[in-house]
Amino acid sequence: MYSVVVEHIYLLVTVTLVSVLQNAFFALKVEKEGKCQNIPASGFERVCCANRNCMDAYPTFLAVMWCAGLCLNQAPAAFAGIIYLVVRQKYFIGYMGQTSQSTPGFLFGKRILFFLFSMCIVGIFNYLLVHYYGADYKEYVETITGAASALLLIP
Amino acid sequence: MYSVVVEHIYLLVTVTLVSVLQNAFFALKVEKEGKCQNIPASGFERVCCANRNCMDAYPTFLAVMWCAGLCLNQAPAAFAGIIYLVVRQKYFIGYMGQTSQSTPGFLFGKRILFFLFSMCIVGIFNYLLVHYYGADYKEYVETITGAASALLLIP
Amino acid sequence: MYSVVVEHIYLLVTVTLVSVLQNAFFALKVEKEGKCQNIPASGFERVCCANRNCMDAYPTFLAVMWCAGLCLNQAPAAFAGIIYLVVRQKYFIGYMGQTSQSTPGFLFGKRILFFLFSMCIVGIFNYLLVHYYGADYKEYVETITGAASALLLIP
Repeated sequence: MYSVVVEHIYLLVTVTLVSVLQNAFFALKVEKEGKCQNIPASGFERVCCANRNCMDAYPTFLAVMWCAGLCLNQAPAAFAGIIYLVVRQKYFIGYMGQTSQSTPGFLFGKRILFFLFSMCIVGIFNYLLVHYYGADYKEYVETITGAASALLLIP
Repeated sequence: MYSVVVEHIYLLVTVTLVSVLQNAFFALKVEKEGKCQNIPASGFERVCCANRNCMDAYPTFLAVMWCAGLCLNQAPAAFAGIIYLVVRQKYFIGYMGQTSQSTPGFLFGKRILFFLFSMCIVGIFNYLLVHYYGADYKEYVETITGAASALLLIP
Repeated sequence: MYSVVVEHIYLLVTVTLVSVLQNAFFALKVEKEGKCQNIPASGFERVCCANRNCMDAYPTFLAVMWCAGLCLNQAPAAFAGIIYLVVRQKYFIGYMGQTSQSTPGFLFGKRILFFLFSMCIVGIFNYLLVHYYGADYKEYVETITGAASALLLIP
């Protein structure tokens, strides 16, 4: 059933991936410019800022996770998603911490998003291979992805 | 066809639900801290603030509505979605109203999002029941959901 | 396969389209009020503002593109998506440019979003025609859409 689905969405997934790259470019620009930004003082501003940073990255995360799950395999994608949520929770809590403490940067969970992003690319590449050459390495790829997702646990 | 789809996405839906819970946690933190926040004075700030609050909740709403529609039944999910949009319209208009008037809170449509959230959980639970025990209560569940969605109309 | 999918999601797509219309209404309100807003001075504020405007419109764009791709045909939807990303890149770069230069407005890519929006409506309308009357103009519609998407290139 999977290849049927992928056949009808692979172009959409590709565009989504490009848009994710663009989002990352924008976020890097913001982070670079914001180096000299001092930490907001009041508690409300801190919470508000943490919430906004989390919300800004939320659609990107959802899009990448669903694309990865649909194109390749849902289990590693869901596992990476859970790890991402844990990282986000840590980020939010850390943002609200002591002012003396160093604030976390604008971006978080870069490694996990990169992993999900790679899953999408591998899935589309695999589909194109099957479609044009008839080769199917999907079982191998899924096994490797499952094993690689365990590596995300390493801090 | 439905159970085939749910089989391939139920883990993704689960992670999405957890992320929605986390979003609600963040929003509650913001609301709690923002109690003492005074109402923005100028018209532009008010519109901008209303727009931002609506946009912050938008990906969450879309994700929950689509998951509920895919996992269980699209008709009650779409109905709840329409109600949510009406509530959002009221919220936006209310935010731009007189300054003397009490401003609506940070969150809105909590009940509807909770309803959609429950639909997702029931859908996944039903799928797992069918998958592991062979029982199928989907018809009953869909009837009950359809009836329950009418309760959302009560203010 | 398509009509099977559309049968199960057309109500959800309809609600998504209504929500997109509402987002456009909100954005127009913000743009109208923000006419007198002066250009932010510092570089960080400019980047931050550009990033926020892009991120605000991102879920809307994703939702419309995926709906258009699923309801009608993925190739024109993906093409319009690529054009939208190019426009967004120009917008972001233009926002960071010289202060003397006129800042781009709050909205961008209106034409492309409108095109994707029309694709969704045509797709749902076509599905309803097939379902209730048995007529199928999908081939014609897809050909016309493919041709119309080329018109987006005209600046």
